[in-house]
Order: sequence, then C-alpha cells, then structure tokens
Amino acid sequence: MTALMLTELIGIEHSIIQAPMAGGTTTPELVAAVSNAGALGSLGAAYLTPEQIAKTVAEIRRLTRRPFCVNLFVSPPPPPPGSWDAGAILAFLSEHYAAVGLQAPEIPTSFAPDPEGQWAVVLAEQVPVFSFTFGVPDPALISRFQAGGTRVLGTATTVAEARTLADVGVDGVVAQGSEAGAHRATFAAGFEESLVGTIALVPQVVDAVDVPVIASGGIMDGRGIVAAEALGAAGVQLGTAFLTTHEAGTSAAYRNAVLRARDDQTVITRAFSGRPARGIVNAFIKQMSEDDAPEPLPFPVQNALTGPMRRAAAQRNDADRLALWAGQGAPLARAMGAGELVGRLMEERAGVLRQLSSAGASGPTRRPTSA
Amino acid sequence: MTALMLTELIGIEHSIIQAPMAGGTTTPELVAAVSNAGALGSLGAAYLTPEQIAKTVAEIRRLTRRPFCVNLFVSPPPPPPGSWDAGAILAFLSEHYAAVGLQAPEIPTSFAPDPEGQWAVVLAEQVPVFSFTFGVPDPALISRFQAGGTRVLGTATTVAEARTLADVGVDGVVAQGSEAGAHRATFAAGFEESLVGTIALVPQVVDAVDVPVIASGGIMDGRGIVAAEALGAAGVQLGTAFLTTHEAGTSAAYRNAVLRARDDQTVITRAFSGRPARGIVNAFIKQMSEDDAPEPLPFPVQNALTGPMRRAAAQRNDADRLALWAGQGAPLARAMGAGELVGRLMEERAGVLRQLSSAGASGPTRRPTSA
Repeated sequence: MTALMLTELIGIEHSIIQAPMAGGTTTPELVAAVSNAGALGSLGAAYLTPEQIAKTVAEIRRLTRRPFCVNLFVSPPPPPPGSWDAGAILAFLSEHYAAVGLQAPEIPTSFAPDPEGQWAVVLAEQVPVFSFTFGVPDPALISRFQAGGTRVLGTATTVAEARTLADVGVDGVVAQGSEAGAHRATFAAGFEESLVGTIALVPQVVDAVDVPVIASGGIMDGRGIVAAEALGAAGVQLGTAFLTTHEAGTSAAYRNAVLRARDDQTVITRAFSGRPARGIVNAFIKQMSEDDAPEPLPFPVQNALTGPMRRAAAQRNDADRLALWAGQGAPLARAMGAGELVGRLMEERAGVLRQLSSAGASGPTRRPTSA
Repeated sequence: MTALMLTELIGIEHSIIQAPMAGGTTTPELVAAVSNAGALGSLGAAYLTPEQIAKTVAEIRRLTRRPFCVNLFVSPPPPPPGSWDAGAILAFLSEHYAAVGLQAPEIPTSFAPDPEGQWAVVLAEQVPVFSFTFGVPDPALISRFQAGGTRVLGTATTVAEARTLADVGVDGVVAQGSEAGAHRATFAAGFEESLVGTIALVPQVVDAVDVPVIASGGIMDGRGIVAAEALGAAGVQLGTAFLTTHEAGTSAAYRNAVLRARDDQTVITRAFSGRPARGIVNAFIKQMSEDDAPEPLPFPVQNALTGPMRRAAAQRNDADRLALWAGQGAPLARAMGAGELVGRLMEERAGVLRQLSSAGASGPTRRPTSA
C-alpha cells in the first residue's frame, strides 16, 4: 500500500475521477468541466476512430488546460465471422429493429475501430492520464506511455487482477466493485465470482498492491467518498453520478431512466454487447433473458449488432431498446452542472469528515444537507 | 434518518453486532464472548427446536449479563410434500451421500422445527434483542416483543424492503449488502436485482427510513466499520469475521476454507438449501451448477435434504460437501478470540478515524497495523 493520494499522483486538486463512459456520454464539455473544477475528466474513447480521438482530444485541450484522461479497451480481437451462428439473434432483433423504424439487421463486418490505431494516437497525443479496461496491455507499451509523461491506470475487479496490473507497471489501479454501472472490467476469473462489492474489494486490493488504488462502484456523494477513503482508497472514480450532469451526452430517455431508478432495478446483462454489463432493466433485457431467447453473440459483435437499434431508440426516446448502463447508486444521481457536482461532492466530503471526527466518532453521518 | 447509534438503541458499548449464523456456528460461548466484550452477540436459532432455544438462551445468560440477540427466520410454510419431484435430486445426492459414508438420502418429512413454537419461546424469554430475516412478521407480534422490553431488528436487502420493515415498527434495520455471506434476506423483489452492494445500499436505506440502519456485508476490520459509519450507518453487523474466532462452532474444514479464501471464490448458490446464499465455491456447488444437474428443491426442503451430507462431511473434514457460507471479505478473516476481535476492531476503527481527521483528510487510510 501507499500513502500517495490521487491528487499527488496526477497533479489535480480533488481525488475524484469522472469515469470514462464510452459511447458518447463523455463529451469534451463534460471532460473539461470536470477537469476545470479540479477533478479528473475522462474521455471514453473505445468506440471512436483514431481520427475522432485526435479531434476530440484537441477539443478537450481547447476547453481545459488541466489534466484529463483518455480510456481504451484491451480486448482480444473479435471472433472471425463464421465462428458464430447469427440466425436466431438476427430473427430476434428484426422485431426490435422494426419497432424503432429500422430495416432488418445485418451482421456487422467491422467492430471496434482499429484498436492499434487507437492506441497509437493516444500514445502520440501524450495525454496527461491514460486508463484502460478489459485486460492487460504489453508492459513495454505501458512504459512508452509513461516515457511520454502519461500516468497509466488499469482496471481490476479482483485482487488477482490488481496484482497482475501492478506487475506490468501501472501507476494506479481502479478497483471496480460489483455496484458499478456498464461493462465489467473482469479479465481473469469468471464474471460471477468477480462481482466483488466495493467495501470488500478495496481494502483487499489496497493490502495487495503498492500503487494507489482508486475505488469505483456505488460511490455517488460525499458519504461514498469518505467511505472509500476509510477503506484505504487514494481516490474515487464516479460514472453514474456524472451521467445526469448537464454536460454529459446522455440521451433524454437514458437520463430520465437514471433519475427515476430504484436500487433494485439494475442487473448484469450480456444482452446489448455480448459482455456482462450493469444497467437498468428494460424490455430488451427482459426478453433476452427469457428461456427461449437467443444467446447474444460474443463481444464486440453483439455490441455492433445492437448499435443501430440503440441509436434509433435514443432518438425516439424509447428507453426499452436503449442500454441504460447505470450503477446501483443511480437513485442518488443529481441533475446539475458537472463542475457544480465536483464542488458539491467536495463539500459533502468535508461535512462527513467533520461529523466523523467531531461527533467523537459516536454519531452516524447525516445525509448531505446540500443534496 | 436518525442520529441514534446502535450503542444507545441497545445499551451496549460498541456498535458492532456479531451476525446470527444459524446451524451451530453461534455457540453460547461465542455469543457471550462478544457481548462480554461490549458488542452484541447473536444466536442464530432458526434450526433449533423451541426446547433447544430455551436451553441455549439459559446458557448464554449464565455466561453473560450483557445484552445479546436471538435471530429467527420469517419464512412461508414449506411446500406440501408431493408438490415437487425429487427423483433427479435424490439420484444426484446419493453419490455424494455415499462419498461421506451415508446410505441413499430420503425425502425429509419435517423441516424447520416448529416456527410458531420458536417464536413463542423467544417472546417468552424476553431477550434483550430479537432479529429476524427472510420476511416481515405481523406488526402485532413485533409490538408484543417490544412490550416485553425486546428491541426488534429486521433485515433488508433493498430500499423497498427497508421501508416495509420500518412501516411494521422495527426498532432498526439491518441492511444486508450483496457481499454478505450465507442466506440472502431478500423477500420482496427478485434475488438478482436485490444483490445491492453495501456502499450503494446503506446510504439509500439511511435516506429512506427513520430508524437506525446497521450495515452488513463485506465489513471485516476497522476500515469497513468507519466506511459504514461514513455511509450513515448506526452500527455494523459482521458474520464472516467471527467465523474464524476460537469460540465459533465452525468445523475445522470450514474454518480452514475461510482462512484460505480469495476474494473471487464466493458465489451465490441455491445448491445446499434451495434459497440463494453466498459461500466459497466447492465441488458440490460446481456440480449442482452444471447444465445437466437437477434443480434444487425449494427451501427448506433442500436444506433438510442436504443436512445429513453436510454434517457427515464436517466430521470427515470434507470441504467439498459442506456449505462454506462466507462473505466476499473472507480473506480478511483472522483466527483469534471473539472478545479479542471486538477489541481489535475498535482499536482499528479509532486508528482509521484518527488518520481521516489528522491527515487533514488528505492521506488514505493505512492498513490497520495491528492486523
């Protein structure tokens, strides 16, 4: 373990990372607003082409001079066409495609846009912070990022994964608890066993690695931030809390679903992407979980296959065919500016710390009065 | 929400409950050692006959004059014989019965011993604290316990369940996060959606109810205790942490499995009891999760059916046919006296609080040096 806080590691004011949510949520405006408020904004770049990444990073740099982060996936190459039988899923999807005004789907022929090109452009951009998820890159590649002045963060869902990441030389580990929204970062053991809750995962990871640990999963306000710090975290990463900020690229239907969510409404599903991810349950997830529903194709094929449906559903305000990725803290999400949220989180954190110390550690934490 | 701590609610020194683990773990010696150390020991009485409960409570009272707790299940009556087809599961189990030296299993004809008698004896005993799980008793029954001077705690896994419990008049709600070992308390929504992590669940429950909230799930040391208090909990309930104390009735094979566990080795399974519960994965769970394995019978039939196998396995030190109930914090379990553990937890808690306040809330929490 280490006593280095995220503020010192990265050179920011507040130990809060806005999580890199791929798929259009993390607009340059969101990333810059968070970084300008003294936390670390992150661009989820995994679904962007190398050219789009370069352009978006330039836009972020125009909007902020503070440190920011870019995130990519480490995923195995997509399975070769013909290695899966798409008949059942295509038949299943055609009805949903029709419901959002689209013609019957076709098997996509290209998936994540050019991973090698993506990594090359992020490396060349010498961004302040680079984070990755779904796996472990070549240690030599991590060193090249670091040689360019970039801090590198990996994502782990278990102690074993955190150890693997520390061994390849990352500067910090994001420990993703089971509460977290969207895709699981799991790359070592099975997905079910690797759904470890934040309060159990973080102290075990802190004990296991010598680099700073960033807690993620279920953290939504000052109470969660202080809880993570008590567990030994050097900082926190919040995704769902930023989904409903004004600058996020969240569609109206998605935003409303998050603001109306209950704690017992999220599930882990492979329905939209082929890879387990947490989202608010809706009609598409329910139908895909029925006994006679087809198996989703492997990631990223299923993700590409459902993409047109999800985009059309967003435009039609159809929450039943959208991926409503969200964590179990969703009911605590607030609609406000992203910079204002960072300020609010830090005020709440200070309030909780005051209560813990002044109540002689004898009174429980009250709900943040500013919430 | 309320500012009342568990210490004030119950009249104890430390806001820590040793969780009521049914099935022989919570010996009178364990309960008394915890209570004598200033926390709240609990007897898991759900599998005891009314006579056994009366005798065990008398033994606890002989060993301590401090408050203690007794826990029972609120479960629907067992399904009538003949409402399930036991052929496949009996065939499956006969091999495992043989492996532990038993003859082929038979369908049990009696299950949980006389629930009405259990409740009547606990009521008559006027125990200091009564807690229940798996459902909601009649409000009139809760009032009768309270009229006898007993504090009543219910168990919730979601905000909706916590609200239901508060509405029927409990004195406090135990919020059971997804990390927790053994049976899920879930009684309202589905089990999967109700697997909410402690760091997400506790603040939402605190915001929703006006009674003290006790956090449980994944809490193993002073870091977890302070985290729970930051989230707004009035106290904590720890089960797995006490499994490996000297006074616990944990079998040698079970104890060793907990002390050797990794964070990614527990799963939620219906294999042993018919009701979802978290335990360390072993051969029996794996075989019961295979595609061609039989469905377990409903709770408590499956529980009664596997009982002889589990008891024989414990005697033979066969960890593959035992229910190794444990939470995701199991790797942080320590072998020591239960009273010593209570003292250690309070020392660690004080250390974490000092670090959070003195490090100006700028340094992360270090591993408890006494751990």
